[in-house]
Amino acid sequence: MHRIASWREGDIISDIYLCRTKVVGKTKTGKSYYSLSLQDGTGNADGKVWDLSSGIDHFEALQYIKVEGEVQRYQNALQLNIRRIRLAREGEYDPADYVPTSPYPIDGMYDRLLGYIRSISHAKLRALLEAFFVNDAAFIREFKAHSAAKSVHHSFSGGLLQHTLRVTELCDDYCKKYPLINRDLLLTGALCHDIGKVRELSAFPANDYTDEGQLLGHIVIGMQMVAEMANRIPDFPEVTKHELCHIILAHHGEFEFGSPKKPALLEAMALHFADNTDAKLEIMCELLTENDAHGWLGFQKFLDSNVRRTET
Amino acid sequence: MHRIASWREGDIISDIYLCRTKVVGKTKTGKSYYSLSLQDGTGNADGKVWDLSSGIDHFEALQYIKVEGEVQRYQNALQLNIRRIRLAREGEYDPADYVPTSPYPIDGMYDRLLGYIRSISHAKLRALLEAFFVNDAAFIREFKAHSAAKSVHHSFSGGLLQHTLRVTELCDDYCKKYPLINRDLLLTGALCHDIGKVRELSAFPANDYTDEGQLLGHIVIGMQMVAEMANRIPDFPEVTKHELCHIILAHHGEFEFGSPKKPALLEAMALHFADNTDAKLEIMCELLTENDAHGWLGFQKFLDSNVRRTET
Amino acid sequence: MHRIASWREGDIISDIYLCRTKVVGKTKTGKSYYSLSLQDGTGNADGKVWDLSSGIDHFEALQYIKVEGEVQRYQNALQLNIRRIRLAREGEYDPADYVPTSPYPIDGMYDRLLGYIRSISHAKLRALLEAFFVNDAAFIREFKAHSAAKSVHHSFSGGLLQHTLRVTELCDDYCKKYPLINRDLLLTGALCHDIGKVRELSAFPANDYTDEGQLLGHIVIGMQMVAEMANRIPDFPEVTKHELCHIILAHHGEFEFGSPKKPALLEAMALHFADNTDAKLEIMCELLTENDAHGWLGFQKFLDSNVRRTET
Amino acid sequence: MHRIASWREGDIISDIYLCRTKVVGKTKTGKSYYSLSLQDGTGNADGKVWDLSSGIDHFEALQYIKVEGEVQRYQNALQLNIRRIRLAREGEYDPADYVPTSPYPIDGMYDRLLGYIRSISHAKLRALLEAFFVNDAAFIREFKAHSAAKSVHHSFSGGLLQHTLRVTELCDDYCKKYPLINRDLLLTGALCHDIGKVRELSAFPANDYTDEGQLLGHIVIGMQMVAEMANRIPDFPEVTKHELCHIILAHHGEFEFGSPKKPALLEAMALHFADNTDAKLEIMCELLTENDAHGWLGFQKFLDSNVRRTET
Amino acid sequence: MHRIASWREGDIISDIYLCRTKVVGKTKTGKSYYSLSLQDGTGNADGKVWDLSSGIDHFEALQYIKVEGEVQRYQNALQLNIRRIRLAREGEYDPADYVPTSPYPIDGMYDRLLGYIRSISHAKLRALLEAFFVNDAAFIREFKAHSAAKSVHHSFSGGLLQHTLRVTELCDDYCKKYPLINRDLLLTGALCHDIGKVRELSAFPANDYTDEGQLLGHIVIGMQMVAEMANRIPDFPEVTKHELCHIILAHHGEFEFGSPKKPALLEAMALHFADNTDAKLEIMCELLTENDAHGWLGFQKFLDSNVRRTET
Amino acid sequence: MHRIASWREGDIISDIYLCRTKVVGKTKTGKSYYSLSLQDGTGNADGKVWDLSSGIDHFEALQYIKVEGEVQRYQNALQLNIRRIRLAREGEYDPADYVPTSPYPIDGMYDRLLGYIRSISHAKLRALLEAFFVNDAAFIREFKAHSAAKSVHHSFSGGLLQHTLRVTELCDDYCKKYPLINRDLLLTGALCHDIGKVRELSAFPANDYTDEGQLLGHIVIGMQMVAEMANRIPDFPEVTKHELCHIILAHHGEFEFGSPKKPALLEAMALHFADNTDAKLEIMCELLTENDAHGWLGFQKFLDSNVRRTET
Repeated sequence: MHRIASWREGDIISDIYLCRTKVVGKTKTGKSYYSLSLQDGTGNADGKVWDLSSGIDHFEALQYIKVEGEVQRYQNALQLNIRRIRLAREGEYDPADYVPTSPYPIDGMYDRLLGYIRSISHAKLRALLEAFFVNDAAFIREFKAHSAAKSVHHSFSGGLLQHTLRVTELCDDYCKKYPLINRDLLLTGALCHDIGKVRELSAFPANDYTDEGQLLGHIVIGMQMVAEMANRIPDFPEVTKHELCHIILAHHGEFEFGSPKKPALLEAMALHFADNTDAKLEIMCELLTENDAHGWLGFQKFLDSNVRRTET
Repeated sequence: MHRIASWREGDIISDIYLCRTKVVGKTKTGKSYYSLSLQDGTGNADGKVWDLSSGIDHFEALQYIKVEGEVQRYQNALQLNIRRIRLAREGEYDPADYVPTSPYPIDGMYDRLLGYIRSISHAKLRALLEAFFVNDAAFIREFKAHSAAKSVHHSFSGGLLQHTLRVTELCDDYCKKYPLINRDLLLTGALCHDIGKVRELSAFPANDYTDEGQLLGHIVIGMQMVAEMANRIPDFPEVTKHELCHIILAHHGEFEFGSPKKPALLEAMALHFADNTDAKLEIMCELLTENDAHGWLGFQKFLDSNVRRTET
Repeated sequence: MHRIASWREGDIISDIYLCRTKVVGKTKTGKSYYSLSLQDGTGNADGKVWDLSSGIDHFEALQYIKVEGEVQRYQNALQLNIRRIRLAREGEYDPADYVPTSPYPIDGMYDRLLGYIRSISHAKLRALLEAFFVNDAAFIREFKAHSAAKSVHHSFSGGLLQHTLRVTELCDDYCKKYPLINRDLLLTGALCHDIGKVRELSAFPANDYTDEGQLLGHIVIGMQMVAEMANRIPDFPEVTKHELCHIILAHHGEFEFGSPKKPALLEAMALHFADNTDAKLEIMCELLTENDAHGWLGFQKFLDSNVRRTET
Repeated sequence: MHRIASWREGDIISDIYLCRTKVVGKTKTGKSYYSLSLQDGTGNADGKVWDLSSGIDHFEALQYIKVEGEVQRYQNALQLNIRRIRLAREGEYDPADYVPTSPYPIDGMYDRLLGYIRSISHAKLRALLEAFFVNDAAFIREFKAHSAAKSVHHSFSGGLLQHTLRVTELCDDYCKKYPLINRDLLLTGALCHDIGKVRELSAFPANDYTDEGQLLGHIVIGMQMVAEMANRIPDFPEVTKHELCHIILAHHGEFEFGSPKKPALLEAMALHFADNTDAKLEIMCELLTENDAHGWLGFQKFLDSNVRRTET
Repeated sequence: MHRIASWREGDIISDIYLCRTKVVGKTKTGKSYYSLSLQDGTGNADGKVWDLSSGIDHFEALQYIKVEGEVQRYQNALQLNIRRIRLAREGEYDPADYVPTSPYPIDGMYDRLLGYIRSISHAKLRALLEAFFVNDAAFIREFKAHSAAKSVHHSFSGGLLQHTLRVTELCDDYCKKYPLINRDLLLTGALCHDIGKVRELSAFPANDYTDEGQLLGHIVIGMQMVAEMANRIPDFPEVTKHELCHIILAHHGEFEFGSPKKPALLEAMALHFADNTDAKLEIMCELLTENDAHGWLGFQKFLDSNVRRTET
Repeated sequence: MHRIASWREGDIISDIYLCRTKVVGKTKTGKSYYSLSLQDGTGNADGKVWDLSSGIDHFEALQYIKVEGEVQRYQNALQLNIRRIRLAREGEYDPADYVPTSPYPIDGMYDRLLGYIRSISHAKLRALLEAFFVNDAAFIREFKAHSAAKSVHHSFSGGLLQHTLRVTELCDDYCKKYPLINRDLLLTGALCHDIGKVRELSAFPANDYTDEGQLLGHIVIGMQMVAEMANRIPDFPEVTKHELCHIILAHHGEFEFGSPKKPALLEAMALHFADNTDAKLEIMCELLTENDAHGWLGFQKFLDSNVRRTET
């Protein structure tokens, strides 16, 4: 199989890819053409179909297609000049191969997450975590397969798990350094802080904002999920429920980033720093990994700076 | 009875007031004194007890006390120079007399609010409104007695009802002018937009932020109340629940004012404008009513301007 | 006549349109072509002239032209592939047909506006309004025909009148709810608040910023018009002139939106809210009317949010 | 005469001062006292009247009073402990002695200002300047006597003239360095940029905001004065009037500082820089002159920084 | 010895304290008094000297004084009502007892810091660190004794070391989680990031901004110290010097917090997050430690929020 | 020689130009072409090579090339349709002819700069200036040839000198108007304020940010250069060194423009105003000079406004 990450200029391709988007364009001379975004688990590339008159069967975005063509270079990027397209047939491909996936093994990460849950002393908080991460098979399946974002960072399957685990590890590290922190509360907040994303973003291959996600956002959705679960656990303390909800509401740290409350508890501050640290460092690491150029990479909107790889 | 609003300089007072706050001060010569904030339904005034050596029984803040003293003027405000204090006895006073109250009759306003509910065509939305405003006696009692704020505007009993009704009227007016608006959705949003305040603020006489209110805020609390109620109504449409929740989340209009989402629906914008219009005009009206001075009143933080009464 | 709003893909057109803009482009192969923006009273569309070698007479932007061609679809929009163009002859067309116009009848709206003027009790304020809206035929003609903006909202003939009337209605409604408002002053302010636009924007078909408009802006121009008129009315009270001028200066509410003063009078606040409410709700309504798509419409700069049509 | 700037601790004073403000206070023991702000042309000082029982005649703020007392030091400032007060009689004092005045001779500055007017080549602009600064005796008298601000900088008689002259000099200097500048237009703008202050601020001794000043501000008032004058000059070019008005409107440079338009002409930018440079450097110079301390002077709100005197 | 932290109301004190500040006040009746801030290694308290007529020898701020008096409560804080003061004599006290000090042992922290230096592989970076932290005895003495701030956080002796070590530990932890980080560069940056504070702040007991500190700030001072040291190390690579300087310049993360460059390298981002995390969590921890109250502590400027202790 | 500024549509060109950038594009039909930016001392223009099959030798960006082709108009700009390219041979051209250069003679400007240095009374400050501008031949050569910016303003050879001289002249003018200014300190600051640009930007023809420039910025680099030079001058006063460094650090005036300190000295404010005035007026003047159109030129990002040429 010819994975997109291993394409080289001049390669002749005959393989199956997920067609993420399909746009019909028109050249200045009035001829129609297709501009496609092709995807497999290793990356994305543009594909162009200049001649629609023969060899191009009907297909739609988010279908799997067998394409034939040649890899060409266009403005420093590779793209596929496509001559033939047909729909792929069930059994010809495994959808799992077409989803970008965390570089870390999902099950290994999940085991470590469960280890953190077992380390929680507060019985009610542990019960709440188990209700999600141990007992709810549908939630577990979704949580493991989800990304943490549409595109900014961790936008691959397993990304939500990877980010959640990393934030939890950072928080656990803070607990050793700042003994005033209530570890049970902070780790519960860390493990739950982004669970609203399983409803804010649709599953792969779409991995796009849901209507509920656009209207309410993962912060409020996640807080609701936690509050409803706490309400179902007998004798869950009210003040603990409010503190946990606050920690989730405040984890973006600032109003302008969508938190309706600023961090008012030590654990809320700690979670905000852990979340922000992992998000920004991951953006930078993904950028440096995708891009093997030396020198300055240009202005990066999410980092609000021009950046470059360290040379020391 | 000598209501605070009718005090005049030189009056000799012997009456019962609510002691809202009690601070122990010390003069420069080392003598202790009390600085009290006295309240009845007509307003507030400071009281000073310079001599604690006799005639002053023990009492605490938020108790009703019988005070004797003389009204004096100090830096343009009246205050009571107190010589005697004792606790008021049950039966000597009616707590309802000590709460600042809306200038409009509560029941008349509530009837108009019920009229709006009856005018809602959408059966599920009307059911949701009735669940709160018709069927839940505890909620109704609280809602009618609550203020809409600790101090900024409508900070009197009945204030939440008065503000809710006014916002609903403004919204109903918009519906006539902009026929694209979904009236059922907008009016439901208007009627519910601040119900979270019954949990964000404690009841009178305290009328102060609750712990839950500080941690979560009335926007998120209110949205949760609406979402939970919708979940209990059979066949309540999911999309309608999300739209209604969005309208409540977005009603402050801007992230910096605590809305985790900006208005994305026509009804969300309309509610935001109605809420903002009534809040700011009410602040200005209360300011002009309390203050009979001519000329410029000085910089007003919540209006971000120096203001004066119109002379035309 | 084939109005632009009723074009369908494949239609063969032979009709007269206003050419709003004409840009000469060059294809990559060096051939010149024209890119036109065509307009009639129902809307706008792009037109392309790929072959300039025959059948294309000389014409300029803002002239009326007879075009022949075929309607084609390009990137989700219809455009006209033009083969022949000649200048339209006087008498072949009525310029009034080529101006986008308010959906409400102009004269009906103007009658209601006059009704508001007759309801003003303050003799000097009514005299000022009559000087503009009753006695100055040139002003009346311009005011009725003007848009309220180049493009953002109410950018059609009659738009200034429609917006002014709507703002006045909202203000009149506020007067009933907030009795402290001086209705004569507020309604005079509402009726005059945007009259500076008759000099900030040129008349149709251009409907573009004038030099004076760019240099001074409609807020200051309008205030000057009101001040000069007040100076001509015998015994017009100075304080009323200043208050009215303030209300106009402050109606954008914030420095950053071009008001050199923040609202300091109750009526100035009320006018600001009415103006802002109608402007933003109209932007949203126009957006939803022009766009029949379901789902999310994408980020809207003037609303600072992604938006969608309500589905309840 | 014992000018305030020459008071020393322990001096016995018996002299006439302007009483700028008079506040009635009450000590903790309930005794009334007066807290006065005394002024002469050299500065301000507090005065205290602890014993009102004898020797203190009736007087009001903004009256001239003869006071007797002793200079004392209170928290690093001198104040007068007053024992006797009576109203000063006409003839006993010259009001001109009680107004803080520019350190530069008024007439010398005005002569230089007239020199700039004579250097203007553009006949209509020169006519406009002469209409104000040569032909309008009332305006000239006010302009010469006015301050440029209530308190921030140049808050002394002659301050408006001094600031106007300095800004004009800076602009004249720019003209030599940037030959694209239209000197006639820029100097006319510089000479007129703050003339609205003769109506925004009342004359000395009050030197406070007028009602018109609060409602409209000197930027808009000044532009109106210029526009009305231009309208009275036959054949004054419209475009020049608009450009001159723009230059005045934009001279604060930013919306947030009250300019309804940003500088769009080279001359508008130049005037903004000259105005800002003189305003800020003058604030700093006045601060260093008033304050003979070494070391850091503390955070200065108008300079947005802690500052200190240069030691090199 | 009667340490300030162990004072109780009513205690009779006769002990030596550092007088940090001395202000001469005057009562309303004109009597002078002293208001002192007393300090020992356990905290601060106010002291009042109401009667200066006897028993009060001459002394100045920043001298050690023997005081006698009684502890009283004033507005929820303890203060000392002082009757006698004399200068303390050399030998009567140990200055080290009067400086607030880190709760962690200085030498233990310093050993761990040296351990980090030994772990650096890059010979030139290690040489640079050793030049400061191993070979420069004067620097080492200052660095160990310095605070990290005048008042905000870590404002005690050893605070600079404690903060530096904590930030280095956080960075070391990041290196394990994000393998792209250049550990040698990041840890060198972490160890040096605040060394400029030894010149920005004076040593205890003053612990106040120096003139150089006010004019240049610790970010630029520290970068200069590092650059000059790198220049003295033979063959120190230029690019490494620039990267290290950048990391120090950018460690406040935003222009508005005084960094003249935004983080452009992965290590610069990492250091910024570590610094910000420790600074803010330490502020919160110190606040909760100093303050044993339950409930909401009020708005905290440096955290931009009202905060409270967690109750779970 | 056919200088770019004198090209006219239809000209046949056969001349040598510097190729600043070279981008390989591909037409929609898949054919490669070159898009070049050509430069000589009079300006820039685009060049297109549509046919690479013959007549086009190998060349790279920043080489001098002999090109043959025809000048054509494309979207209101002239571009060269190129048919032949070969590398220019040494001796065929003088690199100095290909660098945009200040309109003022370099040596004349430098003489005036030296005149300012001779006028400095403070021996140590004059020694510091001479160390750079009189004794360091390499620095002098670079300083004279440098631009003051990559593109915004003064982006031509001699631009750094021209801007430095203009700022120094403005400062000298301020010294006459505000006698409190220390002229020696201010003029030394003015002369040195941008010397860091000789290391922030590379020399022509590249004139682009260096790595050091991106990482540290000219403000900090320049301050370091000044501090190191002061350290080498015997008995240079410490406080003067700090004040001079502060003046350079603070000359952008605001944190958001990259100054790590706000101006705290009178001279620091004065330098900031001079720098800002020249930068913005020069942007506007260059814009009006390059662009001979009448009317509004459109929104200018660096001036934050739409602008037009004055018509008076």
